[in-house]
Amino acid sequence: MKAVVKTKHAKGMEYVNVPTPKMGLRDVLIKVRAASICGTDVHIYDWTRWAQHRFTPPRIIGHEFVGTVVKIGEEVTLAGVGNRVSAESHLTCRYCYQCKNGYSEVCRNFKLLGIDHDGTFGEYLVLPEHVVWKNEENIPDEWATIQEPFGNAVDTVLSEDVSAKTVLILGAGPIGLFATGIARACGASLIIVSDPNNYRLSISKKMGAHITVNPRRQDIVQIALDVTQNNGVDVVLEFSGNNQALNQGLKAITPAGRISILGIYERRVNIDLNKEVIFKKVRIYGITGRKIFSTWYKTSRFLSSGLVDPSPIITHQFPLKDYEKGMKLMKDGKCGKVVLTV
Amino acid sequence: MKAVVKTKHAKGMEYVNVPTPKMGLRDVLIKVRAASICGTDVHIYDWTRWAQHRFTPPRIIGHEFVGTVVKIGEEVTLAGVGNRVSAESHLTCRYCYQCKNGYSEVCRNFKLLGIDHDGTFGEYLVLPEHVVWKNEENIPDEWATIQEPFGNAVDTVLSEDVSAKTVLILGAGPIGLFATGIARACGASLIIVSDPNNYRLSISKKMGAHITVNPRRQDIVQIALDVTQNNGVDVVLEFSGNNQALNQGLKAITPAGRISILGIYERRVNIDLNKEVIFKKVRIYGITGRKIFSTWYKTSRFLSSGLVDPSPIITHQFPLKDYEKGMKLMKDGKCGKVVLTV
Amino acid sequence: MKAVVKTKHAKGMEYVNVPTPKMGLRDVLIKVRAASICGTDVHIYDWTRWAQHRFTPPRIIGHEFVGTVVKIGEEVTLAGVGNRVSAESHLTCRYCYQCKNGYSEVCRNFKLLGIDHDGTFGEYLVLPEHVVWKNEENIPDEWATIQEPFGNAVDTVLSEDVSAKTVLILGAGPIGLFATGIARACGASLIIVSDPNNYRLSISKKMGAHITVNPRRQDIVQIALDVTQNNGVDVVLEFSGNNQALNQGLKAITPAGRISILGIYERRVNIDLNKEVIFKKVRIYGITGRKIFSTWYKTSRFLSSGLVDPSPIITHQFPLKDYEKGMKLMKDGKCGKVVLTV
Amino acid sequence: MKAVVKTKHAKGMEYVNVPTPKMGLRDVLIKVRAASICGTDVHIYDWTRWAQHRFTPPRIIGHEFVGTVVKIGEEVTLAGVGNRVSAESHLTCRYCYQCKNGYSEVCRNFKLLGIDHDGTFGEYLVLPEHVVWKNEENIPDEWATIQEPFGNAVDTVLSEDVSAKTVLILGAGPIGLFATGIARACGASLIIVSDPNNYRLSISKKMGAHITVNPRRQDIVQIALDVTQNNGVDVVLEFSGNNQALNQGLKAITPAGRISILGIYERRVNIDLNKEVIFKKVRIYGITGRKIFSTWYKTSRFLSSGLVDPSPIITHQFPLKDYEKGMKLMKDGKCGKVVLTV
Repeated sequence: MKAVVKTKHAKGMEYVNVPTPKMGLRDVLIKVRAASICGTDVHIYDWTRWAQHRFTPPRIIGHEFVGTVVKIGEEVTLAGVGNRVSAESHLTCRYCYQCKNGYSEVCRNFKLLGIDHDGTFGEYLVLPEHVVWKNEENIPDEWATIQEPFGNAVDTVLSEDVSAKTVLILGAGPIGLFATGIARACGASLIIVSDPNNYRLSISKKMGAHITVNPRRQDIVQIALDVTQNNGVDVVLEFSGNNQALNQGLKAITPAGRISILGIYERRVNIDLNKEVIFKKVRIYGITGRKIFSTWYKTSRFLSSGLVDPSPIITHQFPLKDYEKGMKLMKDGKCGKVVLTV
Repeated sequence: MKAVVKTKHAKGMEYVNVPTPKMGLRDVLIKVRAASICGTDVHIYDWTRWAQHRFTPPRIIGHEFVGTVVKIGEEVTLAGVGNRVSAESHLTCRYCYQCKNGYSEVCRNFKLLGIDHDGTFGEYLVLPEHVVWKNEENIPDEWATIQEPFGNAVDTVLSEDVSAKTVLILGAGPIGLFATGIARACGASLIIVSDPNNYRLSISKKMGAHITVNPRRQDIVQIALDVTQNNGVDVVLEFSGNNQALNQGLKAITPAGRISILGIYERRVNIDLNKEVIFKKVRIYGITGRKIFSTWYKTSRFLSSGLVDPSPIITHQFPLKDYEKGMKLMKDGKCGKVVLTV
Repeated sequence: MKAVVKTKHAKGMEYVNVPTPKMGLRDVLIKVRAASICGTDVHIYDWTRWAQHRFTPPRIIGHEFVGTVVKIGEEVTLAGVGNRVSAESHLTCRYCYQCKNGYSEVCRNFKLLGIDHDGTFGEYLVLPEHVVWKNEENIPDEWATIQEPFGNAVDTVLSEDVSAKTVLILGAGPIGLFATGIARACGASLIIVSDPNNYRLSISKKMGAHITVNPRRQDIVQIALDVTQNNGVDVVLEFSGNNQALNQGLKAITPAGRISILGIYERRVNIDLNKEVIFKKVRIYGITGRKIFSTWYKTSRFLSSGLVDPSPIITHQFPLKDYEKGMKLMKDGKCGKVVLTV
Repeated sequence: MKAVVKTKHAKGMEYVNVPTPKMGLRDVLIKVRAASICGTDVHIYDWTRWAQHRFTPPRIIGHEFVGTVVKIGEEVTLAGVGNRVSAESHLTCRYCYQCKNGYSEVCRNFKLLGIDHDGTFGEYLVLPEHVVWKNEENIPDEWATIQEPFGNAVDTVLSEDVSAKTVLILGAGPIGLFATGIARACGASLIIVSDPNNYRLSISKKMGAHITVNPRRQDIVQIALDVTQNNGVDVVLEFSGNNQALNQGLKAITPAGRISILGIYERRVNIDLNKEVIFKKVRIYGITGRKIFSTWYKTSRFLSSGLVDPSPIITHQFPLKDYEKGMKLMKDGKCGKVVLTV
């Protein structure tokens, strides 16, 4: 079969022929219909320091997808041939303290699809049955493939209820944009989105942002105070991974407010814990992964019921073999989500 | 001044001249601009058994309103002359166990506006400063007056998050209709509204109901199961005060779901606690009053931000002296909310 | 092997030779060390109406136990030979809406050990690996076997925090007694236990009850009000399955309090929903099963850390063949928990 | 009357004669029976940079106390002459966004007793009625005076339930020691306390610590992992205000765990947000003040019911005039809580 493989300890990838993956008794074989590119894939492509540390070639990359089950192992009971599926990208162990306590999103032993296990940028994919998710019929392929990152946004927005609350979203990459649509769908009364990229700010408007801010030219904190009668916002959602943005978010938050953080930082962060967290009695939620599978149910409903229309965020589609066009667009920031059709 | 007064231990009320109410050091005097009729007021008008037990004439009735502060007591600091205000109808004691623990909505010693304290169906009204709520400028008078019952709906809907959840609303009186709009604004993925009154069901459609059910002709439970892949709904909101509807709601709820109950029943209720609550691990929330003032903030934001447009529910407006037209409409069920202008 | 089997559609059971159970690829074979008797087992023995409706002979009964894994299926990864284990008695499906949302305690398709699947009152037992729980070393066998019902008590007590709260416990059967010990360990500031059986009240004293009440001679509601400055208790835990006790519990609860209900009622219940739930804004939690496995972790820690000493509740031990002595004691109410050694 | 007054912009204080404070219509006059010294008072004594910035002499200092109401203003309804009282030290505005939403512990306009309003280190004290707390009769004076800092510990421990959880407490000053007793009373299954001061570690043992660690000689993180089967602790409570301790706490926490932070840092903090918070999905609670008055109820019950015995922490008592002895002990770290009798 054809697949996009990280073959070497160097920049780049290759679109090559590889054997169809083998499957075990509890595995399913999936024919991939579409996959989408995550920032992580770009890091692997670029062979950044993080990638060199975390990734071992050769490996088929990619962890977002939609496909059809074409074969199941003898012991499989949770999926059937013909099911149109996506999957949780954390292949969890199910026996660690976290898994057994209902926190498998932070499983101590998980393997990541496309990093520790051959990924979704190929014609076929093998997965253990317990991570497979059956898609709602009325969700089109190009939406079904983005459910994994959409789920990140769901958990970031809904760490606590946002109904009738004021929300500041830092970072309008695809996940920040999903979060904008979700916050709007869940009744946030005011949504401010901040990003230095005006192209992405314009998409955020389509997703429901009431106010957009370019932090290169505008003072986020002052704007947040101005539109909240000097109280600050109830909720900050941090997707930028930028320490300065984080500090602004903390300043912009009202006493007794909360911030949920999904963004990843280049290095350790420096914050004014006394003034912005302790004396304001702020709650901070670190966010990673998705609740398995309650987040997937929510995601599916947001998309299938019409509550969130992610179309403005899915800006480009290419055949799998043209994956490098997607990688380039991602690096240039001139896209929302890029979908690869197989 | 002119006011609608329950003067006698008998059916009916009178529109009469009464003295302008006196005020204390911590009170404010309010010129009423508009008031709205609650089912409670109809009970008092009709002198039902409940009213005979609870109400002592003579008393100006009414507890929903919007008005302007025209005078403040010497010790008042929480409101000023000229403020356009509404108010919490529970005049709370602030020193009981409930008040001191943040549950003043169930204050052990509260007095009810329009029952224990002269009400809002008059030209002027005196209230202790601590129950007064300053209205957002962009909320029109006919919306501002209905914030008190709207708040009941807010607390019923939001006892837990409804985002991406399936919701069954039992009873499409004004509060059930507010709840429909709120649930829709907060991202419920499916809203079923049940009521025997087709006129009200048609309003519920305008407020965002996906499915309407007339329980006289349709099987609520079966419909709820059919549209949820036989799981039942995640959330039931019970406003009908009807034991049969309550039982249907309990049957329609999915295991691990929740029901919030605001409806008042004619007598003790009979339920299958084993099958519908215990074995399904259901949570039941009794709802009364409003959180003071967090519910008012939410209410204000739903109305001022455009998240909920209550216009379809405010079906009639009359001058105060024509209050009997409103009482009649309420009894006939041929209205949503009736607003009286002063 | 020897086992206690419900062989006929009639009162009684038999201690007979049966084949050692067969196992599948994902199953484990366990040599039982001890099992304990639940009220459910007595119902099956007595062939009550409930049992006739729910149970199909022949079947080995029993669902509480501790044992040693002696063989594992080829696909088993979650348990190993030699592990000293107990198990969740709900054999859950893992693919229904409830299981996938983290509520497998109300799985739509669960099978009950000792009812739908051969039970624990025999020398050997086969179970699917995913319900098996590895015991802490320092928990003795006679404590390990009662973890299943102890878990019911954990979830009833801890539906919400009880720290520094006043608690009324209705029913001092084994689960009510476990709950008494747990509430005390978790910092309840006042614990009242009510039961008509003085023998069990005396055990409740040992478990930490501050006040015991015999409802045949004393007025529970009045006592609860007297010791709470007329506020009522913050928390009611209902284990009695008695409608009158439930009504007293609801009356005894303070406004904004909560009640958790595990007791099973003989028939539908009749309650004053207006006065005792709605106007008091009470939360009701139906409780069943145990969170899999977060409740098991808590249970294990309560027992292994010394926080709860269940010894006063484990009143009798017999060899398995003398199970009828245990059944008789249970019916007479002259015991706490009865453990059968194998 | 006699009082301890910070008279000058310099190190030290004076025990001098001052006029008895004046009272308004809603104030109460309290004869102080005992007061206790907080670290804040030592900062003011020492005229540290923080104190120079925040404090304006002359002012009677102190914010912890117990006393008797000897006179009430004409409009006072919430307290009476003869009441033995303590008080919330945040004199809240009751009209800001935070106060009206139930978060008056982070009131936007609060005044601090002993800093913005004459404090408790004098014979008499005037307070607005709404901050006064009536003490339980069976709580002795030397315990009643420490309820204010005890409440800090209550909110830190109970941001989430600690029952059957493993807990690491960083810092064994008086509040960390109160927290140790509270965590033990609330059913924490394992409590590790870390502090470089062995004297305080020995008190922590008396308060219920299972393990004590001196971070100068031992590796907190390794110990926390060793005793939790390498999972890390469920809960970290940070009272040290030390960035290094904070980092160790974050490392010691299990994925999906939580940390509550009351300690105040000398400067901005530096943390590994990616690894220790985001990828572990940790929740951080900033803690300040006390919930008014729900925390006070809990505090009162912990002390009056015998759940927590703070005696080992109250190490010294002096007459008010000897306050300097207390200041010295505090600086030397050779004490728990120092109580001044008036």
